[in-house]
Amino acid sequence: MISDYSEGVAYIDDHYVPLRDARIPITDRGFLRSDATYDVAHVWKGNFFRLDDHIERFFWSMEQLRMSLPLNHAEIRHILEQCVSKSGLRDAYVQMTCTRGVPPRGSRDPRECTNRFYAFSQPFVWIATQQQQQRGVSMVISDVQRIAPEALDTRIKNFHWLDLTMGIFDAYDQGALVAVLSDNAGNVTEGAGFNVFSVKGGALTTPERNVFEGMTRRTVIDMARQFGIPCQLTAMPRAQLKDADEIFITSTAGGIMPVTQLDGRPVGDGQIGPMTQQLQRSYWHRTSSDPRNTPVPYENTMEKENI
Amino acid sequence: MISDYSEGVAYIDDHYVPLRDARIPITDRGFLRSDATYDVAHVWKGNFFRLDDHIERFFWSMEQLRMSLPLNHAEIRHILEQCVSKSGLRDAYVQMTCTRGVPPRGSRDPRECTNRFYAFSQPFVWIATQQQQQRGVSMVISDVQRIAPEALDTRIKNFHWLDLTMGIFDAYDQGALVAVLSDNAGNVTEGAGFNVFSVKGGALTTPERNVFEGMTRRTVIDMARQFGIPCQLTAMPRAQLKDADEIFITSTAGGIMPVTQLDGRPVGDGQIGPMTQQLQRSYWHRTSSDPRNTPVPYENTMEKENI
Repeated sequence: MISDYSEGVAYIDDHYVPLRDARIPITDRGFLRSDATYDVAHVWKGNFFRLDDHIERFFWSMEQLRMSLPLNHAEIRHILEQCVSKSGLRDAYVQMTCTRGVPPRGSRDPRECTNRFYAFSQPFVWIATQQQQQRGVSMVISDVQRIAPEALDTRIKNFHWLDLTMGIFDAYDQGALVAVLSDNAGNVTEGAGFNVFSVKGGALTTPERNVFEGMTRRTVIDMARQFGIPCQLTAMPRAQLKDADEIFITSTAGGIMPVTQLDGRPVGDGQIGPMTQQLQRSYWHRTSSDPRNTPVPYENTMEKENI
Repeated sequence: MISDYSEGVAYIDDHYVPLRDARIPITDRGFLRSDATYDVAHVWKGNFFRLDDHIERFFWSMEQLRMSLPLNHAEIRHILEQCVSKSGLRDAYVQMTCTRGVPPRGSRDPRECTNRFYAFSQPFVWIATQQQQQRGVSMVISDVQRIAPEALDTRIKNFHWLDLTMGIFDAYDQGALVAVLSDNAGNVTEGAGFNVFSVKGGALTTPERNVFEGMTRRTVIDMARQFGIPCQLTAMPRAQLKDADEIFITSTAGGIMPVTQLDGRPVGDGQIGPMTQQLQRSYWHRTSSDPRNTPVPYENTMEKENI
């Protein structure tokens, strides 16, 4: 059914299925031990944004967790293209996942598992809706600490999100939309699926350590270099964030999103700042014009037109 | 097919299915965000061991994560009994799981999910085989840190195991079977699915903080009280563990298991110590005689006999 595919398409066990019907074995260590890594690319107006960079990072993450697949870069790319192409989605969130797999009976040895690959597309996901973005997002600094890199290298994209999820509850409890977590030294780290930037005196700062090095974060750092905006990667004490002129968060799920309220107080004058606006415009321009963009090979001729 | 059921039975979406066919939606936050809690009871010689305690703890964990199910204690108990009964397994590992569930399209709000319940039985799992236990297990203290309780309360049983899994690789790399992780202060915490105890001068010590409070750990603490053995719950520096007369680990997956080698060196005289042996005997006696034990209501009369 067409309608099923339009909600997203998954690739599981060499088959493409409607996302809502996609199921994985309950005994996969990817579920029972969250023994998995993933990456998320996005499609905007029919184009993949930096897909090869996402796939490269995915291979790096697998290597760190000692996982491997019988698929190369080009084959994974093809599967992801198919997941979007078959869905017909022009704006999509596209996930590739590698799990440890199902252990042989009685075995606790992860080396004995055959690693598994799952992928899916779904309609583009927004951390903040367009409406929420227009007035700016409200954020809190949660008391929940981010999992430390000595326990799990946060650069490896992983599903260990309970700290981030409890942060989301913290935000809602305080009437905010998102929460950023701190580390054990009181420095700001990241939130559920996003990095954070502060603007002070025309310069950018973003936490260097204990964060996932998001693709949108990378893109902002690139743009800052291009525009001659100073951008520092360093520890960010809570006080520094509270003292910012502007704050924004970055994510594949929404791009660059302005934060105009922190812990119930306005950030700067409480309006979306000029630096945030400039970067946001440039970012969305890039998503449709970056030379690293690649068009989705839609199956249907009508859908092939890049509207 | 009988043969399929004998490998375990799962309860998913109000149905009992062979474990090998049991699948969960890929979009469940329980998988994609490891947004889940679980508990594991065991059946030994046809009897559940402390099942009600496990179910009680499961409800406590759900509450901590703000989850709830339309099932009460008795209903969950019934489902778990059915999972074992239908499998015919006399010795089984029985898991109950609550996941956040599948979010409505486009939503990132965990409050909008309907929490889901999954359960399954499978043949009893051993961290160490009977053979490995006879000569004692080799353990290393891994450099991987255990996730801190400020990030995620380790008393809530959860699937955030990548630190523990990397610890398992650490152990294998060093020719050992299991690894115990430290905290950021250099104190020993726990390993993949087990707690650790040291014996020194006839007294027991086990880490107090940053550990899952395992049911077998609880049972050992109870037995120590009963036998008049001093048992201290406190911080355990690495050096203290290295200086132990005896070491053992405890887990629902295997009971009390002796550790005779630590970081490549013999523990004490390298033999299984008398305290470990005494507790091990008492433990297996309890698994068949504890008043909190409850017989599995097997469907087949032949299987009902408690052999």
